[in-house]
Amino acid sequence: MPVAVRKQVPPAALSRYTKYLAYAQALKNKGVQWVSSQDLADALELTSSTVRQDLLYLDFSGISKKGYDAAGLAGVLTETLGADVPWKMVVVGAGNLGRALILHDEILRRGYRILGVFDNDGNKIGMRIGGYEVRDMRALASVIGKNSVDIGIIAVPAQAAQEVADLMIAAGIRGILNLAMTHIVSPARVNVVDVRIMAGILELSHAIKSASTSD
Amino acid sequence: MPVAVRKQVPPAALSRYTKYLAYAQALKNKGVQWVSSQDLADALELTSSTVRQDLLYLDFSGISKKGYDAAGLAGVLTETLGADVPWKMVVVGAGNLGRALILHDEILRRGYRILGVFDNDGNKIGMRIGGYEVRDMRALASVIGKNSVDIGIIAVPAQAAQEVADLMIAAGIRGILNLAMTHIVSPARVNVVDVRIMAGILELSHAIKSASTSD
Repeated sequence: MPVAVRKQVPPAALSRYTKYLAYAQALKNKGVQWVSSQDLADALELTSSTVRQDLLYLDFSGISKKGYDAAGLAGVLTETLGADVPWKMVVVGAGNLGRALILHDEILRRGYRILGVFDNDGNKIGMRIGGYEVRDMRALASVIGKNSVDIGIIAVPAQAAQEVADLMIAAGIRGILNLAMTHIVSPARVNVVDVRIMAGILELSHAIKSASTSD
Repeated sequence: MPVAVRKQVPPAALSRYTKYLAYAQALKNKGVQWVSSQDLADALELTSSTVRQDLLYLDFSGISKKGYDAAGLAGVLTETLGADVPWKMVVVGAGNLGRALILHDEILRRGYRILGVFDNDGNKIGMRIGGYEVRDMRALASVIGKNSVDIGIIAVPAQAAQEVADLMIAAGIRGILNLAMTHIVSPARVNVVDVRIMAGILELSHAIKSASTSD
């Protein structure tokens, strides 16, 4: 089945695609064949019209009274999201967060290729994490350039994140996953996605505090 | 200076507050006294009108031609976000991600209190992570209830996340930080914030794939 994205998917819809994909894959693994927009809406606490609107961006149609074929939907979303591509990655920062990323089940399961793990701490260089030896930051640019690495994962302290990003960008990286709690400035051609760990805790604590003061 | 939130902060503004806070704190640490909405906008790649609109929700005014007092702004944002409260937390899942959270510098620095680390894996129970001994999941509910734990951190595989959340919610948790790639259903009184690690990689890979096909 040929799959093409009709037009650019808005960011909010794209963010929901990752949830639809996780849900459709879980159904497929359970052997469930059909999923309606209402099922997706109920499971993900959305409205069914949001779900239907989002899925209009895909060349994939449901069948009246049955809904969407779960495995087919998972396939189209996988292709649209690029989840079927063995992207080449580097990880900078061999602390606990970098380590957790490198050893993440999903990273292994999806077949992503980690081309190198880097740190500037002499105590970490040479250490092994999973199958990878931590290398000196000074080798980062040449590894990215020679291997046409796609994605750089930044797992360093906030104050070092921009400098690491600048090195990656100059070496030709195409996208950055930022685990540091700081904004990274990049040219338009290099997408940066923030993994908001501490920011997530702050949003929760704001919600809890607001609920307490309005009691 | 008394600080009060005028009205409910919209989610998008709240999400930017965490960025303003990080930036204002960095300025304060560098000894910079004043920051304008244009400075904030430039550093975070926003428009200055977005910044000004966002800050209207705070009872905090800038001074003409000088801007905002950086330390004061950091203080108001800290209070608004609840970043000054030593929230009580539990962590479920003593794998690499759970471990990285527990040992996260910012968790220690902000004075959050981790009341327990739990897992259902007999090989992990009894293990030590930082100062914490990993406990059996069966003790989770009583630890949350007895200590009025505020925030539950879920760092288990996707298929187990909802079950863990249900236990936390029944025991009286007030907010959940979800590191699993699955949607968690919760009652309105319990906020769930997703830390989108794999989803972040999928968003990047979609962007890279789209850029390649449009070349």
